[in-house]
Amino acid sequence: MPTPTDPTVPEGVYSRREDDVIERIAQIVGQVNIPAGERHIGDDAAVLAPFVGQAVISTDVAVLGVHLDFEYFPLEDLGFKAVAAAVSDLAAMGARPRGAVVAVTAPPGTDLEELHRGMADASIVTGCPIVGGDLARGRDVTVAVTVFGECPGRGAILRSGARVGDELLVTGPLGRSAAGLRRRRAGASLSDELVVAHRRPWPRLAEGMAARGSGAHAMMDLSDGLGLDLHRFADASGVGFELSDVPVADGATSEEAISGGEDYELLIATDDAARLRLVFQDRGLREPLSIGRVVADVATRTLRGVEFERRGWQHQL
Amino acid sequence: MPTPTDPTVPEGVYSRREDDVIERIAQIVGQVNIPAGERHIGDDAAVLAPFVGQAVISTDVAVLGVHLDFEYFPLEDLGFKAVAAAVSDLAAMGARPRGAVVAVTAPPGTDLEELHRGMADASIVTGCPIVGGDLARGRDVTVAVTVFGECPGRGAILRSGARVGDELLVTGPLGRSAAGLRRRRAGASLSDELVVAHRRPWPRLAEGMAARGSGAHAMMDLSDGLGLDLHRFADASGVGFELSDVPVADGATSEEAISGGEDYELLIATDDAARLRLVFQDRGLREPLSIGRVVADVATRTLRGVEFERRGWQHQL
Repeated sequence: MPTPTDPTVPEGVYSRREDDVIERIAQIVGQVNIPAGERHIGDDAAVLAPFVGQAVISTDVAVLGVHLDFEYFPLEDLGFKAVAAAVSDLAAMGARPRGAVVAVTAPPGTDLEELHRGMADASIVTGCPIVGGDLARGRDVTVAVTVFGECPGRGAILRSGARVGDELLVTGPLGRSAAGLRRRRAGASLSDELVVAHRRPWPRLAEGMAARGSGAHAMMDLSDGLGLDLHRFADASGVGFELSDVPVADGATSEEAISGGEDYELLIATDDAARLRLVFQDRGLREPLSIGRVVADVATRTLRGVEFERRGWQHQL
Repeated sequence: MPTPTDPTVPEGVYSRREDDVIERIAQIVGQVNIPAGERHIGDDAAVLAPFVGQAVISTDVAVLGVHLDFEYFPLEDLGFKAVAAAVSDLAAMGARPRGAVVAVTAPPGTDLEELHRGMADASIVTGCPIVGGDLARGRDVTVAVTVFGECPGRGAILRSGARVGDELLVTGPLGRSAAGLRRRRAGASLSDELVVAHRRPWPRLAEGMAARGSGAHAMMDLSDGLGLDLHRFADASGVGFELSDVPVADGATSEEAISGGEDYELLIATDDAARLRLVFQDRGLREPLSIGRVVADVATRTLRGVEFERRGWQHQL
């Protein structure tokens, strides 16, 4: 967005600086393999070839110092995590990514190239091209990432579709990200396996598309921790749940698995878990882990018969 | 995006506060007239019915204190202007809006409802529903708005399509926004006509769609002022220009018309201005104003024979 100009500012202050910065960033975030007929960075808006089926859109904002502790992590991690978190929302609907736009604010002197390199890395590994962006001056480094995808064939899977009797599954053991954060704070290197799980979350795009293809009823990504997200899932579907197990990742604590967040594994409800497993197997994906069952009574929310409390991070706004 | 959780934080700090705030905001920004089969706020991502033709996407970020002077304007203006600026990018492509997502950061205590009321107002007047969003804590109030639209029939109009001999036109006289800012700083009321032009910019959606329908060659919105944007337009098209006139709005100065910015009038290049005028007339739109002509020599950039300098606001990043 432009800034109200002040005609009294001497002309020397006006420069091509912003255009120059954007040109450098455009080189970092891609502009390669642009499909014929598409136009990405460089116009008022990006132009994409028609979407196939429903369009799915999500936005996510990350703030340096809130979402990333800059004492322990490089700036590029903020960029990577912001893009990965947004792409994970596409995974949660079973959508195929088509693109992302990134809006950044930063104080003068910020290494914008490093920040955008992190975004570019996430864009490449998720196959979600960065097709546009905006930049503005601010006190905080903030990264707002908006992603859009498509759902050819069947429609997107909502979190509100879970039915009584459905089996609940997750795409992997939980707590790796929180354990990585703990380990990093205790001195582990940036290349420690769990620290990498925290720095470089992996959106479960293939799993999400496979679950949609298999006819799963409901899905969401575990971004704020099972202890909060499962309740949101049950609230949206108007159901309760009885958990038999919470799979804890190697090196993580049970508490980290339940309320750690940022694992970005998918939570899936289906009445045909055998078919789900088969589709996952066919596509070379890790077997999903059963964690329990959907029940009719919305007040029943238990883990091995004990109340499963609502807990996890929420911003105080 | 979630925040890395700290398992040592006492449980009382975890609350439903964020979910509560989002619920209130969802009531403000709409959730009315949602088309069948669409799902807006409340899931991991918004789900929209298939797009018709090319998809057009743009993102814009606004920062309180940078893009809006809070001594002179209420917070809701930041919300309105952020949405309007983004929607104007759709207008510049000739696209029809399909939706917007809004990512906000703010310090504790910010009147988020007022901010979102401004966004909701802009959403209503532009017919661009807010279908999702995100919130995070930060020192600045920032609003990142991403809009997406569609181009049924002909493709989007780029700024790079101007051809030698094309007539250049704008959709209205320039400088109203900068004049309004000046008047407000000098004590004019918030309801002063030019101050309203600054607070409540009007994206030229109908004009953009009409220009696309008429077969115009190139288009962009004048967000940073003709003195900067026309050069970008000429750069993108690889051409020069000879301006005969810059239409100055009543109450604005010539300098405000050239480098004021935020007018959001459209700049159009066409080889059939008669047809463009006819389509505008048919649709009840104000007659576009001719300002000059596209020439082959990229170095020729003149207003009434005198060099037309590159000038206008750019962020120092």
